Amino acid sequence: MKVAIIFGSQSDKEIMKKAADVLRGVGVEYSAHILSAHRVPELLTKTIRELEASGTEVIIAGAGLAAHLPGVIASQTLLPVIGVPLTAGSGASPGGLAGMDALFSIVQMPKPIPVAAVGIDNAANAAQLACQILALKYPELKTKLENARVKMKENFAGPEGVEL
Amino acid sequence: MKVAIIFGSQSDKEIMKKAADVLRGVGVEYSAHILSAHRVPELLTKTIRELEASGTEVIIAGAGLAAHLPGVIASQTLLPVIGVPLTAGSGASPGGLAGMDALFSIVQMPKPIPVAAVGIDNAANAAQLACQILALKYPELKTKLENARVKMKENFAGPEGVEL
Amino acid sequence: MKVAIIFGSQSDKEIMKKAADVLRGVGVEYSAHILSAHRVPELLTKTIRELEASGTEVIIAGAGLAAHLPGVIASQTLLPVIGVPLTAGSGASPGGLAGMDALFSIVQMPKPIPVAAVGIDNAANAAQLACQILALKYPELKTKLENARVKMKENFAGPEGVEL
Amino acid sequence: MKVAIIFGSQSDKEIMKKAADVLRGVGVEYSAHILSAHRVPELLTKTIRELEASGTEVIIAGAGLAAHLPGVIASQTLLPVIGVPLTAGSGASPGGLAGMDALFSIVQMPKPIPVAAVGIDNAANAAQLACQILALKYPELKTKLENARVKMKENFAGPEGVEL
Amino acid sequence: MKVAIIFGSQSDKEIMKKAADVLRGVGVEYSAHILSAHRVPELLTKTIRELEASGTEVIIAGAGLAAHLPGVIASQTLLPVIGVPLTAGSGASPGGLAGMDALFSIVQMPKPIPVAAVGIDNAANAAQLACQILALKYPELKTKLENARVKMKENFAGPEGVEL
Amino acid sequence: MKVAIIFGSQSDKEIMKKAADVLRGVGVEYSAHILSAHRVPELLTKTIRELEASGTEVIIAGAGLAAHLPGVIASQTLLPVIGVPLTAGSGASPGGLAGMDALFSIVQMPKPIPVAAVGIDNAANAAQLACQILALKYPELKTKLENARVKMKENFAGPEGVEL
Amino acid sequence: MKVAIIFGSQSDKEIMKKAADVLRGVGVEYSAHILSAHRVPELLTKTIRELEASGTEVIIAGAGLAAHLPGVIASQTLLPVIGVPLTAGSGASPGGLAGMDALFSIVQMPKPIPVAAVGIDNAANAAQLACQILALKYPELKTKLENARVKMKENFAGPEGVEL
Amino acid sequence: MKVAIIFGSQSDKEIMKKAADVLRGVGVEYSAHILSAHRVPELLTKTIRELEASGTEVIIAGAGLAAHLPGVIASQTLLPVIGVPLTAGSGASPGGLAGMDALFSIVQMPKPIPVAAVGIDNAANAAQLACQILALKYPELKTKLENARVKMKENFAGPEGVEL
Repeated sequence: MKVAIIFGSQSDKEIMKKAADVLRGVGVEYSAHILSAHRVPELLTKTIRELEASGTEVIIAGAGLAAHLPGVIASQTLLPVIGVPLTAGSGASPGGLAGMDALFSIVQMPKPIPVAAVGIDNAANAAQLACQILALKYPELKTKLENARVKMKENFAGPEGVEL
Repeated sequence: MKVAIIFGSQSDKEIMKKAADVLRGVGVEYSAHILSAHRVPELLTKTIRELEASGTEVIIAGAGLAAHLPGVIASQTLLPVIGVPLTAGSGASPGGLAGMDALFSIVQMPKPIPVAAVGIDNAANAAQLACQILALKYPELKTKLENARVKMKENFAGPEGVEL
Repeated sequence: MKVAIIFGSQSDKEIMKKAADVLRGVGVEYSAHILSAHRVPELLTKTIRELEASGTEVIIAGAGLAAHLPGVIASQTLLPVIGVPLTAGSGASPGGLAGMDALFSIVQMPKPIPVAAVGIDNAANAAQLACQILALKYPELKTKLENARVKMKENFAGPEGVEL
Repeated sequence: MKVAIIFGSQSDKEIMKKAADVLRGVGVEYSAHILSAHRVPELLTKTIRELEASGTEVIIAGAGLAAHLPGVIASQTLLPVIGVPLTAGSGASPGGLAGMDALFSIVQMPKPIPVAAVGIDNAANAAQLACQILALKYPELKTKLENARVKMKENFAGPEGVEL
Repeated sequence: MKVAIIFGSQSDKEIMKKAADVLRGVGVEYSAHILSAHRVPELLTKTIRELEASGTEVIIAGAGLAAHLPGVIASQTLLPVIGVPLTAGSGASPGGLAGMDALFSIVQMPKPIPVAAVGIDNAANAAQLACQILALKYPELKTKLENARVKMKENFAGPEGVEL
Repeated sequence: MKVAIIFGSQSDKEIMKKAADVLRGVGVEYSAHILSAHRVPELLTKTIRELEASGTEVIIAGAGLAAHLPGVIASQTLLPVIGVPLTAGSGASPGGLAGMDALFSIVQMPKPIPVAAVGIDNAANAAQLACQILALKYPELKTKLENARVKMKENFAGPEGVEL
Repeated sequence: MKVAIIFGSQSDKEIMKKAADVLRGVGVEYSAHILSAHRVPELLTKTIRELEASGTEVIIAGAGLAAHLPGVIASQTLLPVIGVPLTAGSGASPGGLAGMDALFSIVQMPKPIPVAAVGIDNAANAAQLACQILALKYPELKTKLENARVKMKENFAGPEGVEL
Repeated sequence: MKVAIIFGSQSDKEIMKKAADVLRGVGVEYSAHILSAHRVPELLTKTIRELEASGTEVIIAGAGLAAHLPGVIASQTLLPVIGVPLTAGSGASPGGLAGMDALFSIVQMPKPIPVAAVGIDNAANAAQLACQILALKYPELKTKLENARVKMKENFAGPEGVEL
């Protein structure tokens, strides 16, 4: 039960860390990798092979601008790949289109090479999706997710007593 | 190993059928359901419960316009939900924004309730993603997917001999 | 003569408060509720039933990103539902598309489940619209709105004397 | 219990007729008017006054391109105004931006002059919203809407038996 | 030779002032007016009549969001109306779509009621356009504009000597 | 009292003809020219000089895609230039963005070189704007425009008697 | 002096053929290849190596949707790569965003891996750009391009004699 | 082996400097010029002639808003022109559409006058592309680029050891 988190630069760490936080919270092992589809394509291929060999089951990839990273990974593995469109670094980049360019570049994949896109900068949801995928196979994780959802509902700020 | 395919109206059948075709091609069992998050919310809830009880493991939901269906399903189950933004019916609807409205409505989910979005009208990729998720648990499906990918590469129209 | 104001998180309070201000200004009773279509769907359903039972006549719902809240409410009641697309929290969220995603998710509802969309972050207009709806039934409110409009025109900074 | 349906040209009739169909279906009286905020502003003003005098309670206005009609009406009455963004004529106009221009022009109204926007070309939903507003005041209409919603659910093509 | 500058609120003054600066620079008389198509439609009509009577020849109107002001003015006069799409106040408004909503609302006017749109927040260009229109009739203004253009070219930071 | 109509290719004639129709309708003389800012820049410059010399007072320029034509003309003359964004040819071009690219390329001009943009494919409004500009100087044209507007209002398909 | 034209499927041939036509017109040798960054990444890599070995100097790559092909090629070679955003097949694909998705996916490349983007579906311009690049090195091609440009200007449908 | 960098105002220097940095890094000579297609068209033409005469081989042009500069240059030379869409000054301009307007104005050029567009504000990539073009002719530059790419890969912050 292992997830890999891949992204392109140090400046993406702050956002991608939220994926790691979710995985740690439910005890799913993960590894993190700074890699680029465009700058180190050979190293990316080599790493994908190693991740497969070492039992990684889901890959989360975050990328901004012409966000090819998730799709390029998906073309080289049959593991489910979850793509996180980034607005580039923390806060929006002047040269990016608010993540809309990254979203289109990630989600509009040709068949039969899908990427599972989540919301812009929503690395937490990528990790949650990875967990829900793994929970199909690992009953103890399923139980944890069910408990977390119950807890979320209990802790919800509820409909009573809101002052406006 | 079962997938449910849910969509809102008869007019979506032509596009959603491509998901069924992919699943049949690799021998994954599926059921298909016309349901609406807005018109029959109680029936949707009841069906989700039944799908879970009967062993469905992945849900594919296609929707157009303010495409709430995948997200509403995701709020009621921990099964992975794959959303297909539709341009509405076959061909683009005059009142739809080329599927961009559906894409935003599907992909921008709040945490911790992810939907795995695929490309606009790309039901085939939704099914392929469902298969890759199931292949984590079912080795025989993994083998089939690997064979299909090898075959796809062999059959590729190749770089030689193209006349322009 | 009662309005309910529903929104998804504490961070939306600053903007949704403007709806409350308008309602208080003309003496319309209101209740405010933090609720989520995705995180606590059962609680949302229960609250809608209670609001109907206690005489609520119009519901204002504010939501950002894949803004399903107004539509999900509209699918469970025949009370008029007014949707406020939010840019998410105060100021725009890096992961949101300036409220355009929320607008599309709110306004493009399938028939016959309408939501009355107002402008992005324009909670004041949602409340004003609620008042105009209620004024059809409550003559004293109609008089108040008419007086307010007359006053607005009298107080207008007028065409004379602007220095540029 | 009367609704007015206003739009700018003969070419909008096909789409706006869907509003009339909904109103007729539940026995709500309506009148229809071809009027333009830009071409006959004085006639528009005169008509609004007459509609108010003759007991109209809700106004539905459809417009395309720089769709000012609903907002200009809203500036001259306190009746609720529902705006239908049109793609211009039947099918999309080459010079229109798929109704996105009309949507922005209708929904982004300044306070305190709201327009209740519904989906692009979705005149049926405009009429349904008008009915839900009127049902607050007219119990017999409320009963009809409730019955229609029950019927809609009963008639729904259900989750069983869909072949894909 | 007189221009009127009309806009909706005090917060637009900073941007619209740039139009006044250009007009003063070439000695064109102008008046400035805070008016709203939606809040004070009767006062707007009255002011348009007075502007025509007092010899105003071009009207510049700035507006944001659902920017109806220029079009509503154009529907009530045959004077050329120049529209300036505003991002709303100084800097962009959270609830505005970067001025794109205002641009569409201003430029997409139905025939035969044109508005001459200039760039977003580009009040200076609106004034320059007004001058070029007036210069057709007033030779002394034409000479001033020609001189200004010659001067602009002479003062241009030239192609020599830029360090990068 | 003369207007020049300039556009880039034979395929634009059908749309630009609507400008000529409007001008003929009120007896304004015009000339038409197929010219390109990119393909024959020297010929464009030469033609602009000739148009100025022969008394042309307003220039209407239609262009699609990266629609530079109106702006390039504006950089070489002080005559008012009206830009018509084209969807490219009759009907939308597959490679064009529904005229949105042309609109942005025409309207977002830097100061002090304005172009007066009208709606996408709205050549009729460009001609109407040209007439309103010329009417400042030519009282007989002003009278014609006033008469045409009165006639338009009289002929309007009134608010009575519309069947839906 | 050789150019390679690469694209993803038979359905792109009609548009990409326009690049071949331009190259043939000035006697530049080319080869054409159907290849996919996602479906046959290894074959793509192998082909890029062969193209480099056989003296290809510029690569033109056309792709639609999440158009990764040009960028993936650019990551594996230092030859100039020209990207053509496709609306997908001949005419626009229902699931594509009019080529805007492809444009963003091609042009927004991270440094230092540029792709030279040309207009949507504008394969002819890609070939022209390739020629202009090659003309820096091959004087005889430069002469041909100069002659073609002179001819284009001579043949231009001139400013005289256009009837509207 | 010489590149010219052209842009419209002092405020663009900060971004365009990144192009100069790249060129200096590999020893490619360059000149920088502040010029405007709209404000000093004659000076621009004169400078293009001088650049050609003095051996410039590639032109990089940066522009914002209705970014005509690269296209206007391309219409006057057969040298390859690389266009950099700018968000206008450092950081985004309130009146600009996040560089999307500039991108469309630069990339959607008519045939046969191409501009090679790179990413928004990505002047570094423009320079890298210029180098790759020049490397076809200058083997010593090719070697430098190859070495730089090897070094980039070696220095990449590898896949090991990232803490999240």
